[in-house]
Amino acid sequence: MNSGFKFFSCILLLFFTSGRAQEKIVIGEKHALFSKILNENREIWIHLPKTYNDHTISPAKYPVIYVLDGEINFEYYTGMSDFLARTPYADIPECIVIGIKNTERTRDLTPTKSQKKSPVNPNIMLFSESGESENFVRFLQEEVKPFINKNYRIQEYTVLVGHSFGGLFAINTLLTHPEYFNAYVANDPSLWWDNKIMISKTKEYLEKNKEFPKKKVLYVSQADNEEQQKNWNSDMTQAIEDFKKIIEQNGSLYYQHRFFVGEVHGTVSYPANYEALKFVFKGFRTDIKQLAKKPGQLEADYRKLSDRAGTEFLPSETYLNTVVKFMKNNDFKETETYFINFKNKLYPKVK
Amino acid sequence: MNSGFKFFSCILLLFFTSGRAQEKIVIGEKHALFSKILNENREIWIHLPKTYNDHTISPAKYPVIYVLDGEINFEYYTGMSDFLARTPYADIPECIVIGIKNTERTRDLTPTKSQKKSPVNPNIMLFSESGESENFVRFLQEEVKPFINKNYRIQEYTVLVGHSFGGLFAINTLLTHPEYFNAYVANDPSLWWDNKIMISKTKEYLEKNKEFPKKKVLYVSQADNEEQQKNWNSDMTQAIEDFKKIIEQNGSLYYQHRFFVGEVHGTVSYPANYEALKFVFKGFRTDIKQLAKKPGQLEADYRKLSDRAGTEFLPSETYLNTVVKFMKNNDFKETETYFINFKNKLYPKVK
Repeated sequence: MNSGFKFFSCILLLFFTSGRAQEKIVIGEKHALFSKILNENREIWIHLPKTYNDHTISPAKYPVIYVLDGEINFEYYTGMSDFLARTPYADIPECIVIGIKNTERTRDLTPTKSQKKSPVNPNIMLFSESGESENFVRFLQEEVKPFINKNYRIQEYTVLVGHSFGGLFAINTLLTHPEYFNAYVANDPSLWWDNKIMISKTKEYLEKNKEFPKKKVLYVSQADNEEQQKNWNSDMTQAIEDFKKIIEQNGSLYYQHRFFVGEVHGTVSYPANYEALKFVFKGFRTDIKQLAKKPGQLEADYRKLSDRAGTEFLPSETYLNTVVKFMKNNDFKETETYFINFKNKLYPKVK
Repeated sequence: MNSGFKFFSCILLLFFTSGRAQEKIVIGEKHALFSKILNENREIWIHLPKTYNDHTISPAKYPVIYVLDGEINFEYYTGMSDFLARTPYADIPECIVIGIKNTERTRDLTPTKSQKKSPVNPNIMLFSESGESENFVRFLQEEVKPFINKNYRIQEYTVLVGHSFGGLFAINTLLTHPEYFNAYVANDPSLWWDNKIMISKTKEYLEKNKEFPKKKVLYVSQADNEEQQKNWNSDMTQAIEDFKKIIEQNGSLYYQHRFFVGEVHGTVSYPANYEALKFVFKGFRTDIKQLAKKPGQLEADYRKLSDRAGTEFLPSETYLNTVVKFMKNNDFKETETYFINFKNKLYPKVK
């Protein structure tokens, strides 16, 4: 062994030893991506769910959640989606979460060029760079999604999550490209933008198309009205309420609107995203203790959810392992056999 | 340059280059700690808040939150506490979060040795290993806390967070060592334990001491009653309600009890921890836009919170920087000067 190699091995050993003593807790990776459409470098943050690299199960596929303002929302969102997907109490399937980091936020998230006096100080004009959301949605659809779909095992079910201008962007995407995502989450969306242009756009959409495509989900949260007024931005509230009326009257979306008492514009995303995830995947949660008596309930529950969502959701192998173990531990022999067979049917082991 | 060194440099370059292209998103570190009290190796997970290593501000001190069942709660909890502490919408101060990973959970978290028939299958006896929580709380107080206090910049304000047996443990700690923590969070606590022994212990405590020490905080969450009954564990509900009555009648704690509709035992921690954090630090949130008109409100708000909590909370340097910037951007010159002076008083720069 030459001395250089010895030195190198030594450093390597040191590195891995200290790495073991103080192991990092890693929740994702930042990827650099050059966007031809936007002509700039972009950063996307990628989180894979807990079982993604679990080699004791068959390779699974996962729905993908695209979260705007990634630098603010990614870290809590991944903890939230993992917790909500935790066996045996799962309210949602395990998901891949993609955070999109901003460069020129206002430019990317607003649908039209518009300016406005600052609500805090009317001498200041805001939003000189705005109105290029069509480029940004093409970046998501034509560059980010193909990259994710190529490199990860994805199930063809996508959710778009945005707040404020991001909520405006989500609703605009639903109106202009409803086929791009399955579910849209708009937290306290800036529907006041450009003299409430989204309100007239929604009306036009519905006059032309009569209704939204089947099986689409929309969740809208709204921050506290009184708090909003304190924040000198009450036209926001009015626009969200106008939008709510139109969507509820039409009735073709799987839609939920929620007003959050005590949450302001900058805080509402957190509780709203929690509720939105449960709403988007409503019907996913099954009760493991009830299955002891009614094992067939599992298939029935998943069939119902899949019909509603327009994609096939199956009980995960991880969940079925937990169910089998639960039946075994509690000595429900017949139900145990039922679920062993069910699991082998869904996830046949290659001999 | 010899060839070994060249080879080593080359590998190092490769390592750091690929590290840049796919940078890991790290939220904490796992530390190994040998406990003399428990006579075993323990793992604690440590999360530092965003500004901990920000060298543009004076070194700050942070309250510490101890989270039981670390392997389940740490990842979402750190995202939650960071989001809630986000300037300028902060509901809570930035905190250090310590997750305690389990080894023998039932042994560590239960105050007495007790056994019980499985509610799912009465032929099975549960909890043969139980009743050693006094050792575990000593491990936290005499081993974990000194380690944290020595190695990190902490503010003397601590929160203990537990769920189920962890909630039982939190309440037992409040009764046996109320001085150990400032605030106690008990999510759907297992107060049914050992024929509701915690109910009689609470009564005994109050007969002896008349009331709890000043400025202590207790937050108790309760999962959905009907769901609980489906889960064959309704004595849990009854015990929590007995406890609630006693605490409310006594009235000496800063106390909140919350029943969560639609959340079951295994899911309630998430929304409850969010609400609990806001309750523990209630009064922390200040409205940056209001400060433009009433700058003195900031000191008044913090004084009120500090009085209630029994420790001095100060506006962070990061928040004051944001306030100054906001006043500058919106051309509130007088208020800007006020906050520059206020900041220099609290955080004098060493010349």
